[in-house]
Amino acid sequence: MRLQLRTWPEVETYLKTSRGIIMPIGSTEQHGPNGLIGTDAICAEHIAWGVGEATGALVAPNIGVGMAAHHMEFAGTMTLRPSTLMLVIRDYVTALAEHGFQRFLFVNGHGGNIATVRAAFQEIHAELRAAWGPSAPDIRCKVISWWENESVHKLSRELFGASEGSHATPSEVSVVQYLYPGHIKTAPLDPPTAPSSMFYDARDYRRRFPDGRIGSNPGLATPEHGKRLYDAAVAALADKYCAFVNEE
Amino acid sequence: MRLQLRTWPEVETYLKTSRGIIMPIGSTEQHGPNGLIGTDAICAEHIAWGVGEATGALVAPNIGVGMAAHHMEFAGTMTLRPSTLMLVIRDYVTALAEHGFQRFLFVNGHGGNIATVRAAFQEIHAELRAAWGPSAPDIRCKVISWWENESVHKLSRELFGASEGSHATPSEVSVVQYLYPGHIKTAPLDPPTAPSSMFYDARDYRRRFPDGRIGSNPGLATPEHGKRLYDAAVAALADKYCAFVNEE
Amino acid sequence: MRLQLRTWPEVETYLKTSRGIIMPIGSTEQHGPNGLIGTDAICAEHIAWGVGEATGALVAPNIGVGMAAHHMEFAGTMTLRPSTLMLVIRDYVTALAEHGFQRFLFVNGHGGNIATVRAAFQEIHAELRAAWGPSAPDIRCKVISWWENESVHKLSRELFGASEGSHATPSEVSVVQYLYPGHIKTAPLDPPTAPSSMFYDARDYRRRFPDGRIGSNPGLATPEHGKRLYDAAVAALADKYCAFVNEE
Amino acid sequence: MRLQLRTWPEVETYLKTSRGIIMPIGSTEQHGPNGLIGTDAICAEHIAWGVGEATGALVAPNIGVGMAAHHMEFAGTMTLRPSTLMLVIRDYVTALAEHGFQRFLFVNGHGGNIATVRAAFQEIHAELRAAWGPSAPDIRCKVISWWENESVHKLSRELFGASEGSHATPSEVSVVQYLYPGHIKTAPLDPPTAPSSMFYDARDYRRRFPDGRIGSNPGLATPEHGKRLYDAAVAALADKYCAFVNEE
Amino acid sequence: MRLQLRTWPEVETYLKTSRGIIMPIGSTEQHGPNGLIGTDAICAEHIAWGVGEATGALVAPNIGVGMAAHHMEFAGTMTLRPSTLMLVIRDYVTALAEHGFQRFLFVNGHGGNIATVRAAFQEIHAELRAAWGPSAPDIRCKVISWWENESVHKLSRELFGASEGSHATPSEVSVVQYLYPGHIKTAPLDPPTAPSSMFYDARDYRRRFPDGRIGSNPGLATPEHGKRLYDAAVAALADKYCAFVNEE
Amino acid sequence: MRLQLRTWPEVETYLKTSRGIIMPIGSTEQHGPNGLIGTDAICAEHIAWGVGEATGALVAPNIGVGMAAHHMEFAGTMTLRPSTLMLVIRDYVTALAEHGFQRFLFVNGHGGNIATVRAAFQEIHAELRAAWGPSAPDIRCKVISWWENESVHKLSRELFGASEGSHATPSEVSVVQYLYPGHIKTAPLDPPTAPSSMFYDARDYRRRFPDGRIGSNPGLATPEHGKRLYDAAVAALADKYCAFVNEE
Ligand code: NI
Ligand code: NI
Ligand code: NI
Ligand code: NI
Ligand code: NI
Ligand code: NI
Repeated sequence: MRLQLRTWPEVETYLKTSRGIIMPIGSTEQHGPNGLIGTDAICAEHIAWGVGEATGALVAPNIGVGMAAHHMEFAGTMTLRPSTLMLVIRDYVTALAEHGFQRFLFVNGHGGNIATVRAAFQEIHAELRAAWGPSAPDIRCKVISWWENESVHKLSRELFGASEGSHATPSEVSVVQYLYPGHIKTAPLDPPTAPSSMFYDARDYRRRFPDGRIGSNPGLATPEHGKRLYDAAVAALADKYCAFVNEE
Repeated sequence: MRLQLRTWPEVETYLKTSRGIIMPIGSTEQHGPNGLIGTDAICAEHIAWGVGEATGALVAPNIGVGMAAHHMEFAGTMTLRPSTLMLVIRDYVTALAEHGFQRFLFVNGHGGNIATVRAAFQEIHAELRAAWGPSAPDIRCKVISWWENESVHKLSRELFGASEGSHATPSEVSVVQYLYPGHIKTAPLDPPTAPSSMFYDARDYRRRFPDGRIGSNPGLATPEHGKRLYDAAVAALADKYCAFVNEE
Repeated sequence: MRLQLRTWPEVETYLKTSRGIIMPIGSTEQHGPNGLIGTDAICAEHIAWGVGEATGALVAPNIGVGMAAHHMEFAGTMTLRPSTLMLVIRDYVTALAEHGFQRFLFVNGHGGNIATVRAAFQEIHAELRAAWGPSAPDIRCKVISWWENESVHKLSRELFGASEGSHATPSEVSVVQYLYPGHIKTAPLDPPTAPSSMFYDARDYRRRFPDGRIGSNPGLATPEHGKRLYDAAVAALADKYCAFVNEE
Repeated sequence: MRLQLRTWPEVETYLKTSRGIIMPIGSTEQHGPNGLIGTDAICAEHIAWGVGEATGALVAPNIGVGMAAHHMEFAGTMTLRPSTLMLVIRDYVTALAEHGFQRFLFVNGHGGNIATVRAAFQEIHAELRAAWGPSAPDIRCKVISWWENESVHKLSRELFGASEGSHATPSEVSVVQYLYPGHIKTAPLDPPTAPSSMFYDARDYRRRFPDGRIGSNPGLATPEHGKRLYDAAVAALADKYCAFVNEE
Repeated sequence: MRLQLRTWPEVETYLKTSRGIIMPIGSTEQHGPNGLIGTDAICAEHIAWGVGEATGALVAPNIGVGMAAHHMEFAGTMTLRPSTLMLVIRDYVTALAEHGFQRFLFVNGHGGNIATVRAAFQEIHAELRAAWGPSAPDIRCKVISWWENESVHKLSRELFGASEGSHATPSEVSVVQYLYPGHIKTAPLDPPTAPSSMFYDARDYRRRFPDGRIGSNPGLATPEHGKRLYDAAVAALADKYCAFVNEE
Repeated sequence: MRLQLRTWPEVETYLKTSRGIIMPIGSTEQHGPNGLIGTDAICAEHIAWGVGEATGALVAPNIGVGMAAHHMEFAGTMTLRPSTLMLVIRDYVTALAEHGFQRFLFVNGHGGNIATVRAAFQEIHAELRAAWGPSAPDIRCKVISWWENESVHKLSRELFGASEGSHATPSEVSVVQYLYPGHIKTAPLDPPTAPSSMFYDARDYRRRFPDGRIGSNPGLATPEHGKRLYDAAVAALADKYCAFVNEE
């Protein structure tokens, strides 16, 4: 049910019975010595596709580069400025809203996106109100990260305990290993579990987390764990999507 | 050689021997009754991956939503405003340039992107010069559409002749059929070959081209044709990439 | 220790021993039938002043209008677009950074600001890096809402229990009653404790929360409670400020 | 009659009989060796409050940081870029206009704001016209500096003669001494009356005016003079406000 | 001495002895029943050329469309938004500054431009400072309207007295008649001298000034008067230019 | 038929019978050792005037500074950033559209403008659609460079053959010599015909084309050739204008 794999008459038909759409958003940023740079983009996109399968919902194209300014001291990281990402989200949502979409569930793969995504939602509301006043379309946008639900949370704690950490986690690395089994990387992780703290800008990040990981031991990742996490995430988000589009 | 399937230390290693990267850019827009909405995004992304395989070059994440304002009267079309797309390109290029990338070959899947992409290149040069003066990095950006080469041109003429047209072409539909054989659509095409002319805005476009096609008969598309076109495009662009990064 | 009540030579002297500054940010938005429109602005500004007294830190001028687009269906609410607020924060921080300030603790009075404030911090980092590269100043920005600490949290639960709610709370109304005893308002609150849920845009907000409150009974507010909350907030934030500026 | 000290139902009531509002705008910038950095912000805000008291008009929150780029070589000065300040004014006015406010009298405390404020007014008209065409709201914006009236002008000439100067004037310093008697500063002023000329950017400003003053001797300031000037300004602006809102 | 009539080697030579340049800026807006829409653009450009001849200074291309939002209810008026005009001025000045120009005298033909032009100058200073800090180029920008000098002022009072008015004045119409004798228009002017007042937006302007003039009787214009005014303006501005570029 | 030489009532009358207007756009950039910096601006403007004469169409004021970032290493070149030029075009078109103009033929003098101009057209369509939806005005914009027609093409090939080149061409230099016979420059051209290739940014341009020319020998230019080219261009574009405004 990827939008990109439909024709325009099919979308026209879809809109007769549904106003909802799933919007994957990830990031392209370092994920430690053995995590793929596309980890967040891949998780968001594939989990969104899974939710689309499970619910019959359309899935928009992925926003594969997010807000990762704080990872920029590691080679290969890409980032949109928050102001750019806000415009991208504005354009995605308003384009789809022209066709009649009104319920946008953003399936997020990167914690660093959330502030900007939420700011973007308010920017959209403000712009539509400025242009249309009381006749602005009734747009509802919501963002949920794929791990923000009880079942994934419980599972990752069970599988990895305190070694889950918060960046380059064994959970997300597992999901990617499950999805891209041909691209499993091994690399020395020293120390096995990375240090953990908050951080400020990109230089500060690199100083605190020299190999890019925060608090995690992604050496524990396996494709099997990944499958379980993936399935749990899809199921949980499918429920959330249905609740969202049926909300009054 | 997708950037997203690498780790940051692998990218660091890559940069020791190459400063080049391939940047796919497509569009998410109506492609007539039997063409997928993702046609341009899919072509650009997969051909870029092919070029990456052929040359050993890294391939950045796809810009899957382009400038398609003129298709907005057809359900499911998405578009970035030109001003947004310019910022996206600016952010992609400058992020990668921070790591040392300096040669950016944009593999394009949508004619409607080109003006904005070229404007973006100049905006990047102007911004870098404003910030850095004579010590600005030596960035080179180039955009080539995948059909802009003698071999693809010849092949599509041979296969489809005057029915190639200029939007929702049998060539691009064939390539997508080859890449996504599970999503081949059939739909009545009336007339078989669509009318052809230039156009202005989205309403004008719809008025002139009621089913979205321009001058094309995508009913002639087959996955077999698609494979030939795909291979021809990859080979031609691989040559162009090598020439580009080796240019003085 | 308000910056505005100092002279420039005094600030020059201050900078010899400290690089820290406190940045109050509030909002000007409806706070239900008996809450002042300036509630969030007043709380943020006065608590910031208290923290300045307690720590000897300078306090910048208040950002008194924040991001309150979702309250716009109630008369008197003001809002900056997220994109505007980001520029304001950028300008505040970069102006002060030119003089040598490097540690910016935003004392926040409005939950609706947080996403935009965090996006602004990343925008600042990205802009400085674009302009200055590795020689960009070592800026650290942090935002804490005045109720985000154990002592205020405990106290408000003790004083108001489940009637605290999340907008137009008896806690914030109490603090304002303490600070502006001449402007205590009484108004019927029906039901005494307002309904609670999440919400989307301004129209949706008004539909769900007809008098503007969310989950709260601000009829329980008293100036005496306000004093206790104010003192607790100042003490907690003073500790946090000291930890922040002394962090390595 | 500060907007921030009202509730939303009170504002709703106010709008039944008036469409006018007072908008203070100042600056946070060096004011010489003995003038407070907040001089312009304090004058604008307090005089606006006085006008509100005198006329029953609502007073919006202060824009306390203005356009002071030319003072940036003095520690503690803050500034918004003109483009940012224009957006702030746009957001303030359009937010209030949504509720029905239509007459905006900006009470200004800083000469350096005026060009940007006037440009902002035209930007607002242009934006509203672009969005609404002939049905745009009938907004009127006007800016008056508090010293731009015969009575203040005469009084400051009488009190300070040629030592009034044009920045860090004894008049504005007096008003602040009257309003903040606990923050009267003394500092050597050498020469007693500062040099006077026009100027270009911040470096040029500092070169010409090493201690920040232009043409003034703020050593002549007293709180008593400040009270007289304050009262004169409030009375004059109250008249102007009434004329403004009653204009056809 | 128009820049556009020089070659690049000639400009390179010029820059060896001068850092100054004249920047004409006008407007394309209604000028009443018998005034040309290009009045302000023509006056600014031709007077700038005259000053260039008199002083040997280079003259940049005219900014022929200015900020005329308030004239938009009259057919043919064009306007840049203030925010656009600021960017245009930013680009003109920074482009020329890259080559070494540092003294920019804007010869203005339209009062409505001044606020925006001044805001633009500060924006330029702020941007350059943000990008370059203490090593920003020493740019000086100044704007003078062609009638802002004693000799033109005296002459127009002598020629037209109270019928000069403030828009579509007999002075500016005369200058244009002198410069474009083949385009002298006659039209009934009723009343001969137009009403005069201040105004707000474009609708308000049209309501107050139904034929576009403010306070003027352009029926008094003659090409002979125009020549005298033109010569006076050129002479006065030539003096001002010399003083400006020689200022320390 | 220059708009600037008309009065507003004349424009009102014009609009009763025509919705078309001609929009010249050039550039102010180096044109080699003997080409004027204003070459592109002059050609566009004068040819547009010629077309106006031939067709009775109004001609808007010239956009005399275009997108010439790649020429910035040569003294005297001016450029707008693409993002600025897009706003200028947006403001020009939307201002004129308010009066009822709907057909905008941009007569272009500089190849480097085209990408940005085309991006601007799409930006305009997108903005109008966002603001007005289905009731947006039916705007049509088209850009044609003055040499993009069979008769000019043939003539320049006949006159200059392979020495025409692509920048600082004998054709454009001839046209300017015809229009400004008092400003014909002579300068050594070494080699007579300049090298030719594509190029990237400004530094790369200067490195490849040390005197600014690309592939041309402007030493072949004569005013007589210029007259023939000018006449051919005017005739060809007059036809194109008529076809454009009469298109359904
Ligand atoms: Ni991740
Ligand atoms: Ni296509
Ligand atoms: Ni609150
Ligand atoms: Ni002041
Ligand atoms: Ni005029
Ligand atoms: Ni040219």
